[in-house]
Amino acid sequence: MAQRISESTRGVYIISPTPFTEDGGLDLASTDTLVDFYFDKGVTGITILGVLGEATKLTPDESRTFLDHVMKRVDGRKPVVVGASNPGTDNLVRFANEAMERGAAGLMIAPLPGLKTDDQIYAYWETVLTRLGPDIPVCYQDYPQTTTVVTSVAVINRLIDDFPNFVMLKHEESPGLSKITRLRERSDAGKGRRISILVGNGGLYLPQELRRGVDGAMTGFAYPEMLVGVCERFFAGDAEGAEDLFDAYLPILRHEQQLGFGLAVRKDILRRRGAIASSAIRHPGPKLTARDHQELDELMARLEAKLARVA
Amino acid sequence: MAQRISESTRGVYIISPTPFTEDGGLDLASTDTLVDFYFDKGVTGITILGVLGEATKLTPDESRTFLDHVMKRVDGRKPVVVGASNPGTDNLVRFANEAMERGAAGLMIAPLPGLKTDDQIYAYWETVLTRLGPDIPVCYQDYPQTTTVVTSVAVINRLIDDFPNFVMLKHEESPGLSKITRLRERSDAGKGRRISILVGNGGLYLPQELRRGVDGAMTGFAYPEMLVGVCERFFAGDAEGAEDLFDAYLPILRHEQQLGFGLAVRKDILRRRGAIASSAIRHPGPKLTARDHQELDELMARLEAKLARVA
Amino acid sequence: MAQRISESTRGVYIISPTPFTEDGGLDLASTDTLVDFYFDKGVTGITILGVLGEATKLTPDESRTFLDHVMKRVDGRKPVVVGASNPGTDNLVRFANEAMERGAAGLMIAPLPGLKTDDQIYAYWETVLTRLGPDIPVCYQDYPQTTTVVTSVAVINRLIDDFPNFVMLKHEESPGLSKITRLRERSDAGKGRRISILVGNGGLYLPQELRRGVDGAMTGFAYPEMLVGVCERFFAGDAEGAEDLFDAYLPILRHEQQLGFGLAVRKDILRRRGAIASSAIRHPGPKLTARDHQELDELMARLEAKLARVA
Amino acid sequence: MAQRISESTRGVYIISPTPFTEDGGLDLASTDTLVDFYFDKGVTGITILGVLGEATKLTPDESRTFLDHVMKRVDGRKPVVVGASNPGTDNLVRFANEAMERGAAGLMIAPLPGLKTDDQIYAYWETVLTRLGPDIPVCYQDYPQTTTVVTSVAVINRLIDDFPNFVMLKHEESPGLSKITRLRERSDAGKGRRISILVGNGGLYLPQELRRGVDGAMTGFAYPEMLVGVCERFFAGDAEGAEDLFDAYLPILRHEQQLGFGLAVRKDILRRRGAIASSAIRHPGPKLTARDHQELDELMARLEAKLARVA
Repeated sequence: MAQRISESTRGVYIISPTPFTEDGGLDLASTDTLVDFYFDKGVTGITILGVLGEATKLTPDESRTFLDHVMKRVDGRKPVVVGASNPGTDNLVRFANEAMERGAAGLMIAPLPGLKTDDQIYAYWETVLTRLGPDIPVCYQDYPQTTTVVTSVAVINRLIDDFPNFVMLKHEESPGLSKITRLRERSDAGKGRRISILVGNGGLYLPQELRRGVDGAMTGFAYPEMLVGVCERFFAGDAEGAEDLFDAYLPILRHEQQLGFGLAVRKDILRRRGAIASSAIRHPGPKLTARDHQELDELMARLEAKLARVA
Repeated sequence: MAQRISESTRGVYIISPTPFTEDGGLDLASTDTLVDFYFDKGVTGITILGVLGEATKLTPDESRTFLDHVMKRVDGRKPVVVGASNPGTDNLVRFANEAMERGAAGLMIAPLPGLKTDDQIYAYWETVLTRLGPDIPVCYQDYPQTTTVVTSVAVINRLIDDFPNFVMLKHEESPGLSKITRLRERSDAGKGRRISILVGNGGLYLPQELRRGVDGAMTGFAYPEMLVGVCERFFAGDAEGAEDLFDAYLPILRHEQQLGFGLAVRKDILRRRGAIASSAIRHPGPKLTARDHQELDELMARLEAKLARVA
Repeated sequence: MAQRISESTRGVYIISPTPFTEDGGLDLASTDTLVDFYFDKGVTGITILGVLGEATKLTPDESRTFLDHVMKRVDGRKPVVVGASNPGTDNLVRFANEAMERGAAGLMIAPLPGLKTDDQIYAYWETVLTRLGPDIPVCYQDYPQTTTVVTSVAVINRLIDDFPNFVMLKHEESPGLSKITRLRERSDAGKGRRISILVGNGGLYLPQELRRGVDGAMTGFAYPEMLVGVCERFFAGDAEGAEDLFDAYLPILRHEQQLGFGLAVRKDILRRRGAIASSAIRHPGPKLTARDHQELDELMARLEAKLARVA
Repeated sequence: MAQRISESTRGVYIISPTPFTEDGGLDLASTDTLVDFYFDKGVTGITILGVLGEATKLTPDESRTFLDHVMKRVDGRKPVVVGASNPGTDNLVRFANEAMERGAAGLMIAPLPGLKTDDQIYAYWETVLTRLGPDIPVCYQDYPQTTTVVTSVAVINRLIDDFPNFVMLKHEESPGLSKITRLRERSDAGKGRRISILVGNGGLYLPQELRRGVDGAMTGFAYPEMLVGVCERFFAGDAEGAEDLFDAYLPILRHEQQLGFGLAVRKDILRRRGAIASSAIRHPGPKLTARDHQELDELMARLEAKLARVA
């Protein structure tokens, strides 16, 4: 049976883009090489069909085809989390159940854009988590930069107390370092369940977030080996070594982390690294100019030089 | 062959909700009665699958089923405009073509949320209108209250000049009365094509908008006979009589026009008037409380009393 | 001693614009005629230096001059509430104390734009209400359309319980009718203090809001006699008569209620009615075109004709 | 006479916070040490009374006192740019003129929040730049993250062509690297005036921005020597050396660059470095917890260790 995410999940869940061919079709061959690339770099699991995966630009049939293809290539070796955010709750639940039946390890769901007050946010999740039922583990994508929904620690704690299937927080609010501390202080004090916290935002604050108690990352940086290496060193007790590794990649991480535009950078690095055949993005979406490519050449060359110096 | 919208379209295109059964399924029987209700009230055409139609909460199969059912009931008697906004342009174009093949009179499309500058907005439409091709007439839903996209008169004029398939503006920016005047002044001065302008926002400013040169309304007020009557009187030269009729309905129109919440009011008025069997809205969505129902009782009773006095 | 607002305040507090001369200076002569106009129309009190009063475009000296001049003209006859919102809390408290020393009846304060979660909003008010102290009565301007801050019923109830100087809510969230009901249900059930609720938004839903339990209006409609008449009739037990009166003014009220643009309409109606000498607005701000003036002519003529018919 | 910024300005204009004492008063002694600190680190000029300087939390008197004090300490040695953004244009112009009379080198102004279309943005600047007159040099703070105003390249080019006093762009739109390239391509092609572009955002992309043609930075990083060193090396032809220096500081720069929260980090680093006596921020504003201080200890220690290794 497929592995499930849980409140004790730790490690690196790489957020995968959806590979397209140059003419915009699903690229299933690249899907295979991309899965292999990620596994080769040591990730703990994969998350597909998120914002980064251009999920809203796929047809439902394409989503299913892509999901099936990934599941087949992964073949039970590692957990696959599936993005299931949806403006309609019926559609959300339907697709969520399909994904679980196809072997998903859990769902990543962001709250509906437009929710404002604590009670509105709680009520939305109450419906969603209740309708999914206690057996489907859910990762809450806490990403106000795109959803506009700012979730308080108080709401997260209520959800932790009320819904056992809320097992993971994908922490991407920024600034948000103190949010981690406040969440951990409560469970450390025995006042509530401890859930898994994996961080997003490309891992831009990963060393600081690990020191504050997160369990790893769920994000899409095009050099997953850095995320993996940082987490491994940190959990082995080498916080400084972890941060040294992180710092080497930070210039390009910061470059890739540009909101919206970053997806084009990320896909192109993956293409250059041989993980996918094309960096095509469906319309509407960003596109690298010749000048952007030159800049990326320089940043990648600098990274390679730095890694060579260290090695 | 089905009638098409064009730059000379005039009248009332009622924006139709999507009727659901109490348990949330598509209610095709109510779809029939709703179409009949609208025709009985004298609308010029119908617009389906917009925001009001909860389009984003339908499955693609449901959208097609609903579209087919409407087309069958309408049976070519009047034009049916179909909402086709989509976060992905491939999906937009695919569904748009399907809708046209099924007999749609044209498409209603809103710009992608997040577009900011004039050039970004123009570029988006350039792609969409080019990919749809010159034979598919498009109505631009200019509704910043939900899209956040504020379109300048300059951009609209560029689109008018460059794309013959841009034939209609659904004007809902608010405040926006002067926008109408500025658009009309240009075509009146012979400096550009005159397109059809139909107004939204429930018709909240319809008499003023007619006096400024619009061609009618494309909106979803639950008393379409008012919209029809106002337009008929106005175009027959009786601007004051048109506004008298409008004023009688304004209290309830204003009540129905509450953003988000208004859909629940509208569906319930349609239910009370026998147009649909249930006012169910899919989650997430507003729901009337007992107190809300009492308020609606009072407002509807007041309207009836006022109409009786006038008659 | 000056009258103070309190949790039992009832009636119409008119929100006053700040009159300027044609060349943009403070118009103190018109300040006098405006105060007289409002008193002549029967308002309960006046609120100055709000958003509508272009408070952020005055110098601090001008604010004090205007405040002093209004206080002198009012001469203790009726309460004057003073807007005191400020991006800095030190400045807020300093000006608030100055206003109270000059005889203000209380302060109108909106929460800082950018506050999101319940705890953030509460914490802001905790600081502000504590620093002002228990003797300064505060009206909470709940106006998310301009502040972006959406305040939950839960936060309002916490503030009611914790701060006796929070005595009034200026209710302008829209849609927001059910918010009134939820607030009143709690105090009606004896679960918390009952505060005064006055409504804003030009009074667009005043009859419905009165039926749901508000105590009047604090808003800036250019025909204050309507607000006064509606409240008087309603509190005298004639809810239907109140709403009849309201409906007569609704067309022009709706016109004046256009966000941003409405200030120009309002000032021009006041000018036409002889309350102020000029409808000048400081830059940046809206300005009526010739076409806008013609529209206003028509709407005012229709109102007069309607009132004549009724009388 | 005081030096003025111009279209050929190059270098590092450090954005200065406003130092407060622990009890929140203006700290003029720290103002002196802060100016000295900046000069000691080699900055080209100073910019005061911006968002970072908590300008909206000062009284007008405090602003003038602070401005005078800075001017006195600087004593004509280097240019001082003064923030003059204001919701009212009269107030903006009045304070701008005061600042120039007191010896400012120019003004930094952000467009009014809420402007949307190209024409709206242009019209705002047309008024402001015209009213300031051709002799007052202006730096356009292009910072949509706080203003919400997204300015197109087309608008900037129109302003460049129409207003000789528009001499500098403080570029902080993000992502925004290609914006620089597009602006420079035009002036390189001789199609318009070349203005100075200094970058903001703490310098987060400074090496990439320099390679794309900017003239330096106008931002508030607490290690100004890095900004100075990077610009010096770059303009001396050592782009790689410049970026090496940058990379060493990037971890702490990224930490300081957290929107809103970053001001507390920045002020505390300045305090730790002896530039100011207290890191106090006026309410409302962020405050470091003990855990935040520990994190900053670690990041500063890592930076020192890295600099020691390099040296």
